[in-house]
Amino acid sequence: MQVFEYPQKEEWADLLKRPENDLSGLFNKVQTILDEIKKDGDTAVRKYSEKFDGYAAEEILVSKSEIDEASLNVSSQLKEAIYKAKLNVEKFHEAQIIPERVVETMPGVVCRQKCVPIEKVGLYIPGGTAPLFSTVLMLAVPAKIAKCKEIVLCTPPGKDGKINPAILYTASLVGVTKIYKIGGVQAIGSMAYGTDTVPKVDKIFGPGNSFVTAAKQLVSLKDVAIDMPAGPSEVEVLADDSANPAFIASDLLSQAEHGVDSQVILITNSKTLISEVQIELRNQLDLLPRKEIASKALDNSRIILLNETAEMIEMTNSYAPEHLIIAMKDEDSIADQITNAGSVFVGNYTPESAGDYASGTNHTLPTHGYAKAYSGVNLDSYLKKITFQKISPNGLKIIGPSIEQMAGEEQLHAHKNAVTIRLKSLE
Amino acid sequence: MQVFEYPQKEEWADLLKRPENDLSGLFNKVQTILDEIKKDGDTAVRKYSEKFDGYAAEEILVSKSEIDEASLNVSSQLKEAIYKAKLNVEKFHEAQIIPERVVETMPGVVCRQKCVPIEKVGLYIPGGTAPLFSTVLMLAVPAKIAKCKEIVLCTPPGKDGKINPAILYTASLVGVTKIYKIGGVQAIGSMAYGTDTVPKVDKIFGPGNSFVTAAKQLVSLKDVAIDMPAGPSEVEVLADDSANPAFIASDLLSQAEHGVDSQVILITNSKTLISEVQIELRNQLDLLPRKEIASKALDNSRIILLNETAEMIEMTNSYAPEHLIIAMKDEDSIADQITNAGSVFVGNYTPESAGDYASGTNHTLPTHGYAKAYSGVNLDSYLKKITFQKISPNGLKIIGPSIEQMAGEEQLHAHKNAVTIRLKSLE
Repeated sequence: MQVFEYPQKEEWADLLKRPENDLSGLFNKVQTILDEIKKDGDTAVRKYSEKFDGYAAEEILVSKSEIDEASLNVSSQLKEAIYKAKLNVEKFHEAQIIPERVVETMPGVVCRQKCVPIEKVGLYIPGGTAPLFSTVLMLAVPAKIAKCKEIVLCTPPGKDGKINPAILYTASLVGVTKIYKIGGVQAIGSMAYGTDTVPKVDKIFGPGNSFVTAAKQLVSLKDVAIDMPAGPSEVEVLADDSANPAFIASDLLSQAEHGVDSQVILITNSKTLISEVQIELRNQLDLLPRKEIASKALDNSRIILLNETAEMIEMTNSYAPEHLIIAMKDEDSIADQITNAGSVFVGNYTPESAGDYASGTNHTLPTHGYAKAYSGVNLDSYLKKITFQKISPNGLKIIGPSIEQMAGEEQLHAHKNAVTIRLKSLE
Repeated sequence: MQVFEYPQKEEWADLLKRPENDLSGLFNKVQTILDEIKKDGDTAVRKYSEKFDGYAAEEILVSKSEIDEASLNVSSQLKEAIYKAKLNVEKFHEAQIIPERVVETMPGVVCRQKCVPIEKVGLYIPGGTAPLFSTVLMLAVPAKIAKCKEIVLCTPPGKDGKINPAILYTASLVGVTKIYKIGGVQAIGSMAYGTDTVPKVDKIFGPGNSFVTAAKQLVSLKDVAIDMPAGPSEVEVLADDSANPAFIASDLLSQAEHGVDSQVILITNSKTLISEVQIELRNQLDLLPRKEIASKALDNSRIILLNETAEMIEMTNSYAPEHLIIAMKDEDSIADQITNAGSVFVGNYTPESAGDYASGTNHTLPTHGYAKAYSGVNLDSYLKKITFQKISPNGLKIIGPSIEQMAGEEQLHAHKNAVTIRLKSLE
């Protein structure tokens, strides 16, 4: 990791710069595939599945017997772990239920805000080396709590046409309604437009490579909502001399093993900690199966030494990390001052992996500084808020003249007349 | 208005079709302007303001004295109306404040969800014939309640370099921090990238023409969040024979006067009502200053006659209107069955204009069927939800083994090790 000591404020922006997240170079290519899926449906999905993923399943809908078989191939230890994690994720997301708000803003003018589930949601789970059943948990549990009627999941099978059993087991456990063997741009296109086999959904969730991300962006322009824009995963650690260097190194490495483009930053006010963490990094790195990936990610990563706690907090809020670990003496008061982050891990015994799997918080979080304006996935992501108003004749007498005044001033006379005509009927 | 009697279900999709909302034809042109603003800042803003809006203000930041002068030019009646509307919008949006959620998911595992204001928001208010000071109210009041630090507003001045006094007065009343005389793509670009004069914001809100909408979509791909995708405004009226045909006609017309592309739909189970409404439409239309616009919009609008209440509700949820007026005997029970709509107006004395101006609900709402997945602007639109977790050593002993099990199974060994190394230290 590169070390920067006491950088001037003018240098901060450069230091915290992320690689450009510009997918527009992919847009033409991805749009062509999307257009074909919109036009030819399942036929186009099969064609591109064969081309990109090397398979063409006869039946892309996963059957009940495949799910039953998968369950036999998941160890009871893993089932127990998934079950415990599910309970925690459920508890935390159930606590996010918002009651209906009813306000009588003026006598006879009653306004309500009501949360209503998005009817059909689509979850994308990438394939590849790591079978991300934890992401199934994170995306489907809140959908179920929100009472979404249709929860569709797309994930690419291996070349043998099979989906990892832990993914199938988790999807079935948490109540996914339909699972399809489709990956990549094809999966996003199928769920955005619908095909004869795959239902069109109202919102698409989930991570993916740059093609999937570009496809999500393109369909979000007019066809369907998406969870959030995505970029490479990130962690920032805020630490002082009370931190345990071995713990810090293990956290930095768990981010670094995600991919060579992972962003890892350590901000500290302790020079000693820096050297200790670097020694730990070397030692721990050697033991990792994904050593090469992690090592490349660390090459692009930064350690920043600052003087004051206030500066450390300011820099953090200006970076807006996806994950933030706070390992400092005043951990709670510092956590209170964090205004831009996806999820925050407070104290020496709260590794990022806790939130990645099982503490109860969601692990689908805003990267690339999007934490300045976006929330991570939460119960709200599966709901929309509809407002209602009901005005009594007396209420309209009270509020009507203000509406007439304002509508007249905006030169919208039909708007004004909709009130006038009612008030006249009450005379 | 075209009348469709008892259409078959297979015909519904065609009947409810909106005009294509495809802005991609504008993207190249708009992107070129955005790129220039990103590169040249204020210079490019001046160039395009001159080109498109026919002015080039020396000083684009509105001064204190301009605001004071504007206040003198707003009548006391209008001030009072705006003040009353502001109180209602405040009451309804204050009721949307969500307390921090704290859940101990397992002993020693404490998870929190906290709402934090988006620091900098940008509001766009279009120019043109109607001075939309009501939109200033709708966009700035919740920003203030959310405690956003910087509330920037851009709006194009007239050719005389002046902004409508009602807009300036309202902006100042509700606590907008900076007002700039910039319109169109230039406004969106300035707020997305920042210039020497205009601060970069984290999220952009507000309506606009197709150029503004295209610009918002383009900057949302990687630079800044936006409130929601936008299309032409819409109203649907659900009515039976208990409805007042004159009221219905006045509501249809208040949507129709917005623009020739406005969408207006009446769904009813009463043949008599249809003829009565048509007579009322002709009579009321003649009295409107914006008669030509409204009349063109009505030509593209539809009246649909159905048999059953259940069908009427199903069709409504499948259309997902921006505004929905319910003028039926069982108005409350029907309102309860609405699952896709922006804002709902219940009963004979609740015209859409009430919500447009003063009832308390927000008038920035999802059009084009986006109500299936998007909420209208509400307090949440100005907040992001950050999660926190804090695990005690004992908590980690309880939850740790599940994390190790899951991380190992996903082949993310550094994730596993971040737990193992901590558990070992506790042995």
